[in-house]
Amino acid sequence: MDPITIIGLLIALGTTFGAMTMAGIDPMTIFFADPGSIILVFGGAVGATLASNTMEDAVGAGKVMVKAVAAPKQPDKEETIQQLLGFAETARKEGLLALESAAKEIDDPFLRKGIEMSVDGTDPEIVREVLETEIEATQARHGAGAGFFTTAAGFSPAFGVAGTVIGLIDMLNNLSDPSALGPALAVAFATTLWGVFLANYIFQPIAQKLRRVSELEIAYKELVLEDILSIQAGSSPRAVSDRLVAYLTATQQEAMQEKKSA
Amino acid sequence: MDPITIIGLLIALGTTFGAMTMAGIDPMTIFFADPGSIILVFGGAVGATLASNTMEDAVGAGKVMVKAVAAPKQPDKEETIQQLLGFAETARKEGLLALESAAKEIDDPFLRKGIEMSVDGTDPEIVREVLETEIEATQARHGAGAGFFTTAAGFSPAFGVAGTVIGLIDMLNNLSDPSALGPALAVAFATTLWGVFLANYIFQPIAQKLRRVSELEIAYKELVLEDILSIQAGSSPRAVSDRLVAYLTATQQEAMQEKKSA
Amino acid sequence: MDPITIIGLLIALGTTFGAMTMAGIDPMTIFFADPGSIILVFGGAVGATLASNTMEDAVGAGKVMVKAVAAPKQPDKEETIQQLLGFAETARKEGLLALESAAKEIDDPFLRKGIEMSVDGTDPEIVREVLETEIEATQARHGAGAGFFTTAAGFSPAFGVAGTVIGLIDMLNNLSDPSALGPALAVAFATTLWGVFLANYIFQPIAQKLRRVSELEIAYKELVLEDILSIQAGSSPRAVSDRLVAYLTATQQEAMQEKKSA
Amino acid sequence: MDPITIIGLLIALGTTFGAMTMAGIDPMTIFFADPGSIILVFGGAVGATLASNTMEDAVGAGKVMVKAVAAPKQPDKEETIQQLLGFAETARKEGLLALESAAKEIDDPFLRKGIEMSVDGTDPEIVREVLETEIEATQARHGAGAGFFTTAAGFSPAFGVAGTVIGLIDMLNNLSDPSALGPALAVAFATTLWGVFLANYIFQPIAQKLRRVSELEIAYKELVLEDILSIQAGSSPRAVSDRLVAYLTATQQEAMQEKKSA
Amino acid sequence: MDPITIIGLLIALGTTFGAMTMAGIDPMTIFFADPGSIILVFGGAVGATLASNTMEDAVGAGKVMVKAVAAPKQPDKEETIQQLLGFAETARKEGLLALESAAKEIDDPFLRKGIEMSVDGTDPEIVREVLETEIEATQARHGAGAGFFTTAAGFSPAFGVAGTVIGLIDMLNNLSDPSALGPALAVAFATTLWGVFLANYIFQPIAQKLRRVSELEIAYKELVLEDILSIQAGSSPRAVSDRLVAYLTATQQEAMQEKKSA
Repeated sequence: MDPITIIGLLIALGTTFGAMTMAGIDPMTIFFADPGSIILVFGGAVGATLASNTMEDAVGAGKVMVKAVAAPKQPDKEETIQQLLGFAETARKEGLLALESAAKEIDDPFLRKGIEMSVDGTDPEIVREVLETEIEATQARHGAGAGFFTTAAGFSPAFGVAGTVIGLIDMLNNLSDPSALGPALAVAFATTLWGVFLANYIFQPIAQKLRRVSELEIAYKELVLEDILSIQAGSSPRAVSDRLVAYLTATQQEAMQEKKSA
Repeated sequence: MDPITIIGLLIALGTTFGAMTMAGIDPMTIFFADPGSIILVFGGAVGATLASNTMEDAVGAGKVMVKAVAAPKQPDKEETIQQLLGFAETARKEGLLALESAAKEIDDPFLRKGIEMSVDGTDPEIVREVLETEIEATQARHGAGAGFFTTAAGFSPAFGVAGTVIGLIDMLNNLSDPSALGPALAVAFATTLWGVFLANYIFQPIAQKLRRVSELEIAYKELVLEDILSIQAGSSPRAVSDRLVAYLTATQQEAMQEKKSA
Repeated sequence: MDPITIIGLLIALGTTFGAMTMAGIDPMTIFFADPGSIILVFGGAVGATLASNTMEDAVGAGKVMVKAVAAPKQPDKEETIQQLLGFAETARKEGLLALESAAKEIDDPFLRKGIEMSVDGTDPEIVREVLETEIEATQARHGAGAGFFTTAAGFSPAFGVAGTVIGLIDMLNNLSDPSALGPALAVAFATTLWGVFLANYIFQPIAQKLRRVSELEIAYKELVLEDILSIQAGSSPRAVSDRLVAYLTATQQEAMQEKKSA
Repeated sequence: MDPITIIGLLIALGTTFGAMTMAGIDPMTIFFADPGSIILVFGGAVGATLASNTMEDAVGAGKVMVKAVAAPKQPDKEETIQQLLGFAETARKEGLLALESAAKEIDDPFLRKGIEMSVDGTDPEIVREVLETEIEATQARHGAGAGFFTTAAGFSPAFGVAGTVIGLIDMLNNLSDPSALGPALAVAFATTLWGVFLANYIFQPIAQKLRRVSELEIAYKELVLEDILSIQAGSSPRAVSDRLVAYLTATQQEAMQEKKSA
Repeated sequence: MDPITIIGLLIALGTTFGAMTMAGIDPMTIFFADPGSIILVFGGAVGATLASNTMEDAVGAGKVMVKAVAAPKQPDKEETIQQLLGFAETARKEGLLALESAAKEIDDPFLRKGIEMSVDGTDPEIVREVLETEIEATQARHGAGAGFFTTAAGFSPAFGVAGTVIGLIDMLNNLSDPSALGPALAVAFATTLWGVFLANYIFQPIAQKLRRVSELEIAYKELVLEDILSIQAGSSPRAVSDRLVAYLTATQQEAMQEKKSA
């Protein structure tokens, strides 16, 4: 698990509450004095976002949120490279069928499916089509998940403004008691705060994290796809290796070179 | 019917009115005290949106709004997969002509048209061209419908601001009666509220829902198109099945696997 | 002529002035009390837009504005379909030369040019290239026209803000006479109002209408282009018809089917 | 030289100063009372823009600014058409070598280079590649130039806001002398004004003009490129002419037709 | 090293502090009077940005920041052209193997790798694929780096607003001591200032600089890639030269021509 999303959110929340405490402001009186503010902004943003999506998207959004926060560790690039190189060498020397037992032990279902299809003698065109359809379907699912939170992040400040304007109008209609004006305005602004808060501390980081994780997963799958097809076509392990290594950073390339020489 | 859009809008409206009631604010005095606000914002946003479109778009916008709110259920993916697999098997064993009677019973007009053309012996290139033209035309119609509401959502806050500035100028010209200032300002802000309200509770969710429904419908049609062509070309049911299954989520794939084994 | 743009603008203006009258606000005192506001915003927005374009764009912008407001009726799709089907049948039965006299009576210059080139025996590749160049040139001209008004809509609120800030600064420098503050602020906000007004009641609807009209015209020309090439290639009227019909909505398709049966 | 950019900027500035004079506001006291405002906004916007670019971009930005304001006249389309038609006819009748002396007298270096390469017997693929590289390099240089001013236009209002907030904070810390508040606020708002001013009267028009001039130059070069290749391939002058004419507006096409008949 | 980013940032900061000093405002009391403001905005923006990325991106962001500020000098175009021309001539006359010793002395690892693969007799398709994968991987790494700072620039003003609203609410809840209102508001606005400051003086310039440097590096690598393949294919040095020169500005082309003649 990549803890950075939880760490980042804790930093954002911690520094906010820390700064408030330093200034002698009690976070509770700011955020929770008026529960109506939270209900209006959260209910509005979530309601409008649900209305903008399908039932399936709504159910899926809960799942991907966990994924964004837990941020599953990306597959180790070097390990995958070693594994694919091993497959390329075996396929070259002993033929594709020799990969049958190795295929069963692959963790990554995408890679396993591709190798299994190759071993089964599936036409390379079909292998490419099936794996590309899987990549596209994954991308569409990721996009729908990230889109759900982007929509929510877009609606939040708008509902915050709506609540503040409602509060302002109410206050302007009841100007007779000047001593109540300050607290009334404070309550009105609490919805603005919740709008900004939900968008920037919660929805936006989740949406962007999902997009980033998706980007990495798709890039990784595209690389694996090309390599499965190379292995099936019986390319030399050298060609497979050269492309894989080009994908690493200069630092990673050197580290790998050193390990090889050692 | 997918009830999520209605549920979502009810949540957004319900929490807003609930929060107002909790704070002792009468929603009627906020939203409906000044009918001119509603007329100005709604008339302005709808008028400017109509002016930005053609007569045909304006007529169509009414229809698609119903579609967005009612949100027709998406075709059941698993059912379609079973149906297409059945067609692929029949076509393989008994030839395309054997699909003639089955074709008449297909509910989905797009799929029916494709199968009928195949049965009629239409050239595959023409089948692809006709179905792709239909997909493009559907996409263009959906885009025009969603675009209508996106435009309306964009204009609403601008007309809200216009109304508020009009109210402010009027108030500043009549500062002589201080006791009237509060209510005058309240009326001025009511247009801001209606601008935010129309955009975020109504137009924006409809526009986004239409875009999402269109996205799903187009993706589904593109999948069906490829499969009709595979069936016409006499591909093995296995190849048709592999691509179809790749389109499902991992959970759906497992569920399907289990059903198959059972 | 499609009257929707004029209707839409009249609705937007009418409801604005109606709402003002309802609230007892005289539109004249709001919009025209300070002619300097209009001059600053209109002059600034138009000047900056002219500066952003070439002399040719500036001259062209006047012409396309008339086009956007008058909104020339789109060619009748069904009529075009009938005409193209007739051409396809004639070309099939009697050869392309038989279209010579019919070609002269075509109203649409784009279609006429294409049919004439076909009748003249021009190489199909040249026909495609010439018609595609015409489509691209049309698209570029439309884009420049719509872009002119999009730019103007973008500049208007900025000049409105500039004027308001100028008014504010002047007022803050002359705070000695409190009774003059209200009217001074009112004048300052009049430029904000004009900025919002010009952008949303005028420039933005024109820009969006031009884009929409262009979109429809280009889609229509692309359809006609493909059909001219099909006719020249001697495709069966059935194939031409199938693609044309796919372009219609389901309702239009049924209506056409009924007419055919009748 | 196309004077429209200078005319447009003069209109924008003239109407602004005119409107201020009409309202009895002295532009000098608004714009130049606080030189610090100008320094902060201009220095901030230019500094941040320089920091966002390379040294080469910074040097180039000065040159392209002159280009945007002076707006070099676009090549005369009709003249180019006549010239290219002449070349096509000569090449057809007397061979490409006959263009050798004519090539030396071509003003446009892009067209000259293309014709010279053709005369030299360069492989058509190389001619295309070299000219396309030149188009891409031109486009990249134009994009960098326009991007410089777009960046500056984006930074200006932000630095204007920064300056205003600095002024506000300073004023709020020194509330003891109420009579100084107005002028202090006026100075604070002067930076907002300069931010809006620099962005909308200067940087934005220059950026947009550069984009528009680039668009036209690239479209023209792409047309010339296709025609050079047609001439080299020995296409009929008719084909070259048809494509060239399709690029003109309907009005220009008629004007040309008339001249031809005359 | 290209000093422009440091110069630009110094100009932006210098003019801001200069303008403040000119106006008799002590920068320290504005920026550092309330350390909580800095903590809230900086902690919030960095925390939310970290939460939006992976651990690897977070580590990489530090490195690329140094790169943006130090702005490594772009490779000298003319020198590269001379070098590539030399390679093309050698390859033509003495064969690819003659480049073996020269390849070892190439500084640029991308060019060296390409030449070495060519010398080793690697299949041109593999050379292209490996170098294109390297370009794509570089582009993805650059995009992630620039994206980190774009995200941070987007979050900064939002956290500035959040802090200001928190301050406002606190002040409105404690209106009893009017003399404390000014300083309380000043502290509230300090977070707005820091939000604008971090976004526009720091994060945005770094993000844009990274994008610009990446753009140049990718364009350069694409040019080198095409030339390596030309050299491997044994194209004439003339063809290699023509494309390379087309990439230079008119001024650079003339300068090079003169040097050649000299």
